[in-house]
Amino acid sequence: MSTPVAFIGLGIMGLPMAGHLLGRGHKLTIHTRTRHKAQSLLQRGATWADSPADAARQADFVFVCVPDTPDVQRVVTGSGGLLEGVRPGLIIVDHSTISPAATQQMAQALAQRQTHLLDAPVSGGDIGAQSGTLSIMVGGDRTAFERAQPLLAAYGKTITYCGSSGSGQLTKLVNQVLVTLTNLAVCEALALAKRGGLDLATTVQAVGSGAAASWQLANLGPKMIAGDFRPGFMVDLQQKDLRLVMEAAAQSHTPLPATALVHQFFTAAQAAGLGREGTQALFKVIQKLGI
Amino acid sequence: MSTPVAFIGLGIMGLPMAGHLLGRGHKLTIHTRTRHKAQSLLQRGATWADSPADAARQADFVFVCVPDTPDVQRVVTGSGGLLEGVRPGLIIVDHSTISPAATQQMAQALAQRQTHLLDAPVSGGDIGAQSGTLSIMVGGDRTAFERAQPLLAAYGKTITYCGSSGSGQLTKLVNQVLVTLTNLAVCEALALAKRGGLDLATTVQAVGSGAAASWQLANLGPKMIAGDFRPGFMVDLQQKDLRLVMEAAAQSHTPLPATALVHQFFTAAQAAGLGREGTQALFKVIQKLGI
Repeated sequence: MSTPVAFIGLGIMGLPMAGHLLGRGHKLTIHTRTRHKAQSLLQRGATWADSPADAARQADFVFVCVPDTPDVQRVVTGSGGLLEGVRPGLIIVDHSTISPAATQQMAQALAQRQTHLLDAPVSGGDIGAQSGTLSIMVGGDRTAFERAQPLLAAYGKTITYCGSSGSGQLTKLVNQVLVTLTNLAVCEALALAKRGGLDLATTVQAVGSGAAASWQLANLGPKMIAGDFRPGFMVDLQQKDLRLVMEAAAQSHTPLPATALVHQFFTAAQAAGLGREGTQALFKVIQKLGI
Repeated sequence: MSTPVAFIGLGIMGLPMAGHLLGRGHKLTIHTRTRHKAQSLLQRGATWADSPADAARQADFVFVCVPDTPDVQRVVTGSGGLLEGVRPGLIIVDHSTISPAATQQMAQALAQRQTHLLDAPVSGGDIGAQSGTLSIMVGGDRTAFERAQPLLAAYGKTITYCGSSGSGQLTKLVNQVLVTLTNLAVCEALALAKRGGLDLATTVQAVGSGAAASWQLANLGPKMIAGDFRPGFMVDLQQKDLRLVMEAAAQSHTPLPATALVHQFFTAAQAAGLGREGTQALFKVIQKLGI
């Protein structure tokens, strides 16, 4: 069934996600800051909108995928923002990873206009966006979630309803705590192995299938060993997410000592000019401690 | 082919491991500090030896599985120890998790008597020992390893030759860095989720199959959520291994800031009387920080 949908933000994630909606036969309206990024979708039949408000007027669902909290706030409440184009029953799905508290504030403002905001951050990276196998963590009104779910299936493989507004964002932040601390585990383990003279590939093989096993070890370990620091997920973006983690933790008075530590080590990576390398560049920081 | 073998140390790990050797038809001599622990094996046809030296005199391979570095040193160099019973060609396989440096010293002393010492710590716990599916990380002379390998297959599933003497121990310590820091990752992640009001089981489900995935999350996460702190692997034993990690790291001048941190948190667990609980009790310590 073809549904009129709009997509705001056509970056490395949004572009392929919007493409999947188009591929499913939905009537797609798009808007993004840099218009030339929309070119391939316009050629495939998408319609350009001059503002988020204009895009909203032509859709039953508006998807947003932009970098950070202020970007989403601009898209929603800024001049020409979604608030100017909403009508009762519209559902806005925000795929950006942003502040859970800011999400709740925007959801309240939109609810006064009978518009639902679902927070729906994703994990799986650009490869997951391209292959349509993202994990999507959704917070907000349950009925709105159920209406949006068939559309999310265009690019989501694991789609989880996490609870009320902000719950999707908080679940994504929980995900980032796990990802970054497991990454640090791999870095300290390989640093110990390397300085002790072990063969690193043999070491990963010996420990990789038992209680020490993790996605980070299996996927980033070999890159660290090979000295391949090209980005899957960039240090600068990891830091943005860790900043959101530490803000949310401060708001709920949750001490996260090791997460704070890895946040500082990534700051050291940025100071060393590694911000645009992959998160496996954390290994350089940990090794450098020993030099 | 039946081989005369000896097994020293019949604790929670050694007893089922020795049983597997007997089950394979090998001629088994046993010695352990508390003789009544040998009863079941004696009934199955094993022979008792009054000392490690006596056991060594009746075997081509001697397996050792005792708690800590001083215990292995007593078994090897103490009164009635293996050194008194060795002869050229004997191979000693030490399954204990102990100091890599102490291992190298004992290996050198034994080499002067034409006896090989292989360090072969295991992971997989009592369940792995019972089911014969342990991971075994082996250091020492390669030819001696190849001779021992068919015997190790009685209870080992993943058997990795890691390099020269001490390499097996160091690989096990690398394993423990991964295990403990990934455990801490799970604790901080669930603490953030809990204080933010998320449903923890839903959260684990939402994040458990992507870049945040780990054995610790999949296995200890549900126990933390259920409040099940019965030991798979006890805090006290984890602390012993972390002490060995920090010693080895100090010797190789490897700074391990997060591992040092988790070592301190496990100290807090011991202080709270949780030493004999499972390592998932770390969650109690991390939660308590927020109270």
